[in-house]
Amino acid sequence: ETTFRASEHQHIRYNPLQDEWVLVSAHRMKRPWQGQVEPPIMETVPRHDPHNPLCPGAMRANGEVNPHYDGTFLFDNDFPALQPDAPNPGRSDHPLFQAEAARGICKVMCFHPWSDVTLPLMSVSEIRAVVDAWASVTEELGAQYPWVQIFENKGAMMGCSNPHPHCQVWASSFLPDVAQREERSQRAFQCQHGEPLLMEYGRQELLRKERLVLTSEHWLVLVPYWAVWPFQTLLLPRRHVRRLPELTAAERDDLASIMKKLLTKYDNLFETSFPYSMGWHGAPTGSEVKADWDHWQLHAHYYPPLLRSATVRKFMVGYEMLAQAQRDLTPEQAAERLRTLPEVHYCLGQK
Amino acid sequence: ETTFRASEHQHIRYNPLQDEWVLVSAHRMKRPWQGQVEPPIMETVPRHDPHNPLCPGAMRANGEVNPHYDGTFLFDNDFPALQPDAPNPGRSDHPLFQAEAARGICKVMCFHPWSDVTLPLMSVSEIRAVVDAWASVTEELGAQYPWVQIFENKGAMMGCSNPHPHCQVWASSFLPDVAQREERSQRAFQCQHGEPLLMEYGRQELLRKERLVLTSEHWLVLVPYWAVWPFQTLLLPRRHVRRLPELTAAERDDLASIMKKLLTKYDNLFETSFPYSMGWHGAPTGSEVKADWDHWQLHAHYYPPLLRSATVRKFMVGYEMLAQAQRDLTPEQAAERLRTLPEVHYCLGQK
Ligand SMILES: O=P(O)(O)O[C@H]1O[C@H](CO)[C@@H](O)[C@H](O)[C@H]1O
Ligand SMILES: O=P(O)(O)O[C@H]1O[C@H](CO)[C@@H](O)[C@H](O)[C@H]1O
Repeated sequence: ETTFRASEHQHIRYNPLQDEWVLVSAHRMKRPWQGQVEPPIMETVPRHDPHNPLCPGAMRANGEVNPHYDGTFLFDNDFPALQPDAPNPGRSDHPLFQAEAARGICKVMCFHPWSDVTLPLMSVSEIRAVVDAWASVTEELGAQYPWVQIFENKGAMMGCSNPHPHCQVWASSFLPDVAQREERSQRAFQCQHGEPLLMEYGRQELLRKERLVLTSEHWLVLVPYWAVWPFQTLLLPRRHVRRLPELTAAERDDLASIMKKLLTKYDNLFETSFPYSMGWHGAPTGSEVKADWDHWQLHAHYYPPLLRSATVRKFMVGYEMLAQAQRDLTPEQAAERLRTLPEVHYCLGQK
Repeated sequence: ETTFRASEHQHIRYNPLQDEWVLVSAHRMKRPWQGQVEPPIMETVPRHDPHNPLCPGAMRANGEVNPHYDGTFLFDNDFPALQPDAPNPGRSDHPLFQAEAARGICKVMCFHPWSDVTLPLMSVSEIRAVVDAWASVTEELGAQYPWVQIFENKGAMMGCSNPHPHCQVWASSFLPDVAQREERSQRAFQCQHGEPLLMEYGRQELLRKERLVLTSEHWLVLVPYWAVWPFQTLLLPRRHVRRLPELTAAERDDLASIMKKLLTKYDNLFETSFPYSMGWHGAPTGSEVKADWDHWQLHAHYYPPLLRSATVRKFMVGYEMLAQAQRDLTPEQAAERLRTLPEVHYCLGQK
C-alpha cells in the first residue's frame, strides 16, 4: 500500500469554523492552463483625481463634497445595500417562502488621501490609523447593530469599482449566514472542550509550524488547514480577544506591522498588486453585547483568487458551486511559498 | 408605516434546500457601475481545430487520439481532480485537523463534434442525445460511486478553458458538501411534511406564478425564491423523479426542448453567448442506491454571473464571501425579464 502524502494524494479536509469540506487535489497543479487570462493590473493610478468620489475635496454622488482629509475618512455609502428603515416583510405564509426584515447601514472608509497607494505601501503608523478607525466604527455601529462587517475588496478582479485604497463596513440588524455558522461552531466547540476553537487552533498551528506564514509578539498569520483559496490566510491575535475595540495599543501597532508584512509578501508572490477580499469577524454586538461571547475569537480572513501568476486565477465554478470547494495546491505548500518571500515590497527594493 | 414591497425594500430570504440566507436589495440596481468590464465574448471559434483536444480526430494530452465521433463523446479527464486509487490519509489526530479519503473519477463529455455550437444552437434531437448521455454516465459511474456530479462551465468568465461545447462529470466516493446540505434539508422536510420538498415547492410556484420562466408538459423552469445569482434558475420535473436514468423517453424529449428554450432566452437576454455554471442533483447512488431516497427530487441549477449586460457581471466578493450572499434585483423581476424574452435565438432570427 502506498503511503499517504498530502502533496500527492487527493483527500478532503474539514473546516470546523464554517462546517464545510474542501477537496484537496495537489497533483492537479500539473495541468496546463488554456482558459481566461485576466487583464494585467492597471498600475498607473493618479495620486489625486478630482472626479474620483473617494478623493479629498471631490464631490460624491449625493452632492456632498469630501473634506480635505489627510488620514482615514469614513462616510455613508451613496448606494447602500442596507438602509436603516426598510419595512418588515411580515409573516411568511409557507415554510418554503420565508423572508425576514433586514435593516442596516453601509459605510465606506478611505485608508489614505492618495489614490496611488495600497496598504502594503503605506507606513506602519498610517496602517495603525486604519486599525484604529476599524475599532471605532465597530464600536460606533456595534452600539446599534448585532453585526458589523468590515471588508475590503481589493482589485478589479474582486469586483472593486474604485482604485482608491478603501474598505467597506456593512452593519446589519441580523447575523449574516457566515457569522451564524461561525457562531454555531465556536459555541459548540467551547461547550465540548471548554475553550475557544480558534485559541486551541492557533496554539496547535504554533506547535505544528507547517502552515505558519508570519508570527509576531501578538499575532499569527497562517494558511488554515482547510483553506479554499490558493493563498488564503487567517490572521489571529495570540491573546483571547473578542472584538477589534478590545485590542491594546501594543496589539494595534503590532497588527499594523504584521499586516504590512503579509500584504507585502502577497504583492511579492507574483510581483503584482495582489487582489483579495478580506474581512474581520468578531463576537456579535448590538443589544446582546453583554451576553456571554467568550467562545468567539477575533480574526480576519484573506481570500485572494490568484493561483499561478498575476493573470491566472482559481475559478470557483461548476464543481465548486454545485458540489464542493476544490483546491490545486496544499495549504502547506502555499504557506511555505508565502513564508520564504521577502518582507520588502518589490516596488521598493533597491534596483 | 410604509407597506413592504420586495422590489423596493431590502429583506433577507431563506433557501430551504441549501439552508442559506440571501440579502435582497433591489434598490441597488440604481448604482452606477465603474468597476471591471469583462472582455467581449469571443464569437469566432473555428468549427474544427485539429489542435483542440476536444475535437474529433484530435490528439489528447495522454497521446490518445479521439475517434471521429458524430454525436456526444465521453472520455477520461486527462487532468482529473479525483483519481480512483488515492491512499487513505488515516485517522485524524485532532478534531480541528480532520481529513478523509477521497476517491473518484473525472470525465469530460463533448456535446457535439463542432466547436462553434452551443446547446441552444443545437437541434432538439441533438440535445436529447446529451440527455441520454447524462443518464447513461449517471448509471455507469453511479454503480460504483455514491455521488455523480454532472456540471457544465460555459464561457471563459466561468473558468471554462475550452470553447468546444462540453460538460464534466466528477464521481466521488464521498457526498460533497452541497449534496450533504440538500440531503439533510430534503430528508428533514419529508419527515415533517410527508412529501418531497421540491415537489411541494414546484406545486407552490405553479400556483404563485410570479417566478415561473417556462413550463412544459413534464418540466418547470423558475427563478427560485432564494436565488443568489441575478438570473439563476431551477429546472424541475413535474413528476417525482429521483435520478436522471429514471426519466421516460417523453420526459427526455421534453427536457431537450425546454432546455433549448431556456438557453435561448439566456442568450437573448444580453445578446451574447450567456455564461453560466450548471449542474444536476439527484438522489445518491453507489452501494446504497437501494436505500430510501424518496425525499430527493431530481433538479438542475443554473448559476449565470451576468447582471446588467454582456460585460457587467455580479461579483460575489467581500460581503458575500465573508457574511452573506447579496442580490441586486428581485427573483420576481428576473423571472419576468426572462419570461418575456423570445424563444427564437437572436443569432437565428430573420434579419
Ligand atoms: O476542469 P477545468 O474546466 O479546466 O477547470 C474549471 O472547472 C473546475 C471545476 O469546477 C474548477 O476547479 C477550475 O477552477 C475551473 O477552471
Ligand atoms: O460595493 P461595491 O464595491 O461597488 O461592490 C462590490 O462589493 C459588494 C460587496 O461585496 C458586492 O455586492 C458587489 O457585487 C461588488 O461589485
